[in-house]
Amino acid sequence: MEKRVTERSINTPEELKELKVTELEEVCADLRQYIIDVLSERPGHLAASLGTVELTVALHYVFHTPHDRIVWDVGHQAYAHKILTGRRNVFRSLRSFGGISGFPNPAESEYDAFIAGHASNSISAALGLDVASQLSGEERKTIAVIGDGAMTGGLAYEGLNNAASTPNNLLVILNDNDMSIEPSVGGLSRYLTNVTISRFYNNLRYDIFCLLRRVGLLSENSRRVILRFNNSLKALLLGRRNLFEGFGIRYFGPVDGHDVRHLVRVLNAIKEFRGPTLLHVKTVKGKGFAPAEHDAVDWHAPGRFNKQAGQRTNTSAPSDVPLYQDVFGHTLVELAGDNPRIAGITPAMPTGSSLCYMMRAFPERTFDVGIAEGHALTFAAGLARGGMIPVCVIYSSFVQRAFDMLIHDVALQRLHVVLCLDRAGLVGEDGPTHHGVFDLAAFRPIPNLIIASPMDEHELRNLMYTACEVAQTPFIIRYPRGRGSRTDWQNVPMPVPIGKGKILRKGKKLAVLSIGPIGNTVRQALDNLSQEKIQPAHYDMRYLKPLDESILCEVAQTFDVILTVEDGVIDGGLGSAVAEYLTAHGYKGRLSRIGIPDNFIQHGSVEELYRLVHMNVEGIANNIRSFFADMDTGIK
Amino acid sequence: MEKRVTERSINTPEELKELKVTELEEVCADLRQYIIDVLSERPGHLAASLGTVELTVALHYVFHTPHDRIVWDVGHQAYAHKILTGRRNVFRSLRSFGGISGFPNPAESEYDAFIAGHASNSISAALGLDVASQLSGEERKTIAVIGDGAMTGGLAYEGLNNAASTPNNLLVILNDNDMSIEPSVGGLSRYLTNVTISRFYNNLRYDIFCLLRRVGLLSENSRRVILRFNNSLKALLLGRRNLFEGFGIRYFGPVDGHDVRHLVRVLNAIKEFRGPTLLHVKTVKGKGFAPAEHDAVDWHAPGRFNKQAGQRTNTSAPSDVPLYQDVFGHTLVELAGDNPRIAGITPAMPTGSSLCYMMRAFPERTFDVGIAEGHALTFAAGLARGGMIPVCVIYSSFVQRAFDMLIHDVALQRLHVVLCLDRAGLVGEDGPTHHGVFDLAAFRPIPNLIIASPMDEHELRNLMYTACEVAQTPFIIRYPRGRGSRTDWQNVPMPVPIGKGKILRKGKKLAVLSIGPIGNTVRQALDNLSQEKIQPAHYDMRYLKPLDESILCEVAQTFDVILTVEDGVIDGGLGSAVAEYLTAHGYKGRLSRIGIPDNFIQHGSVEELYRLVHMNVEGIANNIRSFFADMDTGIK
Repeated sequence: MEKRVTERSINTPEELKELKVTELEEVCADLRQYIIDVLSERPGHLAASLGTVELTVALHYVFHTPHDRIVWDVGHQAYAHKILTGRRNVFRSLRSFGGISGFPNPAESEYDAFIAGHASNSISAALGLDVASQLSGEERKTIAVIGDGAMTGGLAYEGLNNAASTPNNLLVILNDNDMSIEPSVGGLSRYLTNVTISRFYNNLRYDIFCLLRRVGLLSENSRRVILRFNNSLKALLLGRRNLFEGFGIRYFGPVDGHDVRHLVRVLNAIKEFRGPTLLHVKTVKGKGFAPAEHDAVDWHAPGRFNKQAGQRTNTSAPSDVPLYQDVFGHTLVELAGDNPRIAGITPAMPTGSSLCYMMRAFPERTFDVGIAEGHALTFAAGLARGGMIPVCVIYSSFVQRAFDMLIHDVALQRLHVVLCLDRAGLVGEDGPTHHGVFDLAAFRPIPNLIIASPMDEHELRNLMYTACEVAQTPFIIRYPRGRGSRTDWQNVPMPVPIGKGKILRKGKKLAVLSIGPIGNTVRQALDNLSQEKIQPAHYDMRYLKPLDESILCEVAQTFDVILTVEDGVIDGGLGSAVAEYLTAHGYKGRLSRIGIPDNFIQHGSVEELYRLVHMNVEGIANNIRSFFADMDTGIK
Repeated sequence: MEKRVTERSINTPEELKELKVTELEEVCADLRQYIIDVLSERPGHLAASLGTVELTVALHYVFHTPHDRIVWDVGHQAYAHKILTGRRNVFRSLRSFGGISGFPNPAESEYDAFIAGHASNSISAALGLDVASQLSGEERKTIAVIGDGAMTGGLAYEGLNNAASTPNNLLVILNDNDMSIEPSVGGLSRYLTNVTISRFYNNLRYDIFCLLRRVGLLSENSRRVILRFNNSLKALLLGRRNLFEGFGIRYFGPVDGHDVRHLVRVLNAIKEFRGPTLLHVKTVKGKGFAPAEHDAVDWHAPGRFNKQAGQRTNTSAPSDVPLYQDVFGHTLVELAGDNPRIAGITPAMPTGSSLCYMMRAFPERTFDVGIAEGHALTFAAGLARGGMIPVCVIYSSFVQRAFDMLIHDVALQRLHVVLCLDRAGLVGEDGPTHHGVFDLAAFRPIPNLIIASPMDEHELRNLMYTACEVAQTPFIIRYPRGRGSRTDWQNVPMPVPIGKGKILRKGKKLAVLSIGPIGNTVRQALDNLSQEKIQPAHYDMRYLKPLDESILCEVAQTFDVILTVEDGVIDGGLGSAVAEYLTAHGYKGRLSRIGIPDNFIQHGSVEELYRLVHMNVEGIANNIRSFFADMDTGIK
């Protein structure tokens, strides 16, 4: 059998378009194999990528990218897209420092229409792109590809709702890879018949709508009425056939997402369609790699693996030092065992956050609420109002979605919600969309909050105990991804005095104030410096809010230089809080602040990124060294 | 005809329950009249309140509040509820300083189950309350009352989605007052028949679900699958009858929301129902007051009015000084007239924000996206990616809902989105849920943003011009509610150098740095002080980001005391930025910061609230005076 296509790999949509439709299956096979080859050596998101190979090929075959635009919702789907759009050679640098991003990124390629890191934004963004091209008089098609998981986010719903009321030609592709339900392709031919029949009617309706807008005949009131969800709702009540049609969006599907020739036929049939359209595509996560098909959760992001044996390679050295996540998870089970009022909440991250332990131990009071961070916090507020002690665990960068709910529903009512922020600080390979660096600065100005960060596993356990059993108010605990520093992590949890830091090391001339696990980097830097007879003091503030003013008072009176270190954005967090205190109290020395600089930090390993921002051991030591040189102390 | 009920006004749910169902109509008439009486003198939200009188009476008649809990979504609906729950006598103090809140507030009454100020939170909060009562083994009913407008918010959808997957007995009442569609009561009897028939089946399904959870037979994976929106979606695709049933929520209605006896019958019929239930109630905004029924938009919050004549009283003195809102609205029309790339976006506030002018002038590029702040910004980001210049106007306190979208979709891609924050600072009678005080501090740490605030109307126009025509990056302009200070507001818009402030007054010893219109209060205070020979300098920073470091350098070298003044939260904003600069540069003088203190500020008039926080002319003057007294200057 000849291997025409695979022998000359397809690198661009132009090359793809030169092929016959019968050759596309080979392209898919080649792409799939290449993804498996690369990811077996270069950790990334395998299962989702394998599921969208045929869809990607069909989209680039039918549409004219980058003129037509594909907006991928959460980039794990977009590996085949990257390979097919000129990035085959650099694909091996995926997610590595200086290499290509794991997510679509317009700065990387003109084929990446929009950023994708936080779920559920594709419909809103694509609608904006589509409306912009219409207003500019350009003939472009915009396609949003959204997974069924991302559909749980409120933003996707707001986007759909608006797509129904604004003239547009958006094509939304629902990439439905929920394996619990079998593909039902039977209805397809009937649906496709409907396409042909209704095209005239649909175009007419759209033209009338556009015309009314153009001539200004839609008054403000009638426009408001038109965009109301309510109307869609009523359409549903009146018996229209499904959610999307209730929203006024043409629905087609479900279509077998692994039949590339059929996908091409369907896309060709609907591509000229005017007005918003949704195509429901059924795919299988991990498609074409048996172990991943069998267990897509396990093979979501498997790390390195042996592609022949189908086995994951355990590359991390065996360790008795636990992950912060697991310390959180096990400690919560302990606390919940002692206190039946404690409940657990996660927005769709039970495994990543290790809330799964509580889910197993206490299923009736553990809640996975879907990709819905806002709801997670308001639901927690309701639980707290009802007398429970909800512990809500959310990745730091995702909690940005719940900023208002934290203010309006939790803090304003001073409700006893415990918010655990996982993945705080620079997170590594996921890059700028996922770094958890805004939480300290953004939450500090909110009244009624307690904000703390532990330096090690014991302190995490102690803070969790304090948050649940001592405090009666909203309590935030932030901790990083990855391993802590102790093997003897299972201490008996003890209360930590609220708003109290502690001295770790006495010293002269300069005092370092740190918060959270970055304090361990400081400690190491100070150990190194002590060999040079440079001996600053070191305090672990533990709490950002309330701030330990007794420490501040002490260091202001004692030290010529104060250095703050935090793994959050440089402006607005601990350093700013200390600056506020010092300027208000007439401090005559100098304050220097170390934190994440005021720009978005790229992807790479955690170590590479902290080195990049001079927040590794050496960077911090150099910083301190420079002050001692300046001060012209007796060290010389 | 005897007037038994109205002669003894009903003040509590207990008194209400002693009445016969045939007497409830009189209670409603009395309540409605009382609301009209009070609101004709005491400005408040009239139309929505009149629409929910019967629903309120029926709820308190059937359920056992406060043991059973009613969660109102956006408090404008809840005036009758306040009167009926022991607050008749204090109702005349509505929204006034020290008086009762315009929104439900648990701190005010045990009958107010949850805070309500930002739309769409009721389902999530009520779900939390209901789940908490089940976990505590309490027999309580929780009812969420949500308007059709609030249903457009993503949070409501996230709540509904989760309500479908978590065992609960929540009753959601959809208060549908969209007057564009006639009530259709015909289907009711059929629906109620369904109730009886399906109760056995529904309870059975619920019991099985609870049992599975209790015995832990729902594994993590199957739980995840169960809570997927996707399942609801598929239920819809498979032909279930409407959105809510697609979500697994029993639906009843629509019911005439002004037939109180019928409402009582329906609520009694479904109150014991297990599993989540939705009752669709049709109401008319402004019901019972003809002018408000006729134009609910105009009578939404009419201010004082003559209840006999049905005419609004124009209490504000005629003024040639325009509202900031109108300056924004008219200026945008001018700019959009010159530049076809400019588009306008509002999340459901076209009148309040004055985007309505652009909506009239350029309907094809003005978008009201519904109560959906997150979508508004991501949609704007899409428009900007597509080459447009979107100007998105959102109230400051509501933009909190779009915090992540600002970071992830706008700032990270450095897209040219202009974000105008209306209602910045303390807003007055709407109170703590609506004060726009977090924006400066929360947005300052975000990279790539320009943040500015004008001191008067000319500056607003200049900044809008600069944002649209000069800057190529995200640009935030914040301004307050209410009137500016000029009659000659229509200057020719000029660019404002980005990151440059200006000196307003030279002086000695002390320099005041202000941002935004609070600078006018400072100016007045300095005018007063000049009579006492106290002569500080005054700088208008204009930009929070980038900060004008040349001014900071100058004042640090020249003045003993620096005072910052901003109408945002005290920590994290301008004062903190200045503290960061001064401590980094070894300033030896003293910095004092004036801003909104670190607690939630109550409601009252804008003047009363600024006096409360010592940020009126007198408060600022006193603050400055105290420094000059301390400094023991030559003034004496």
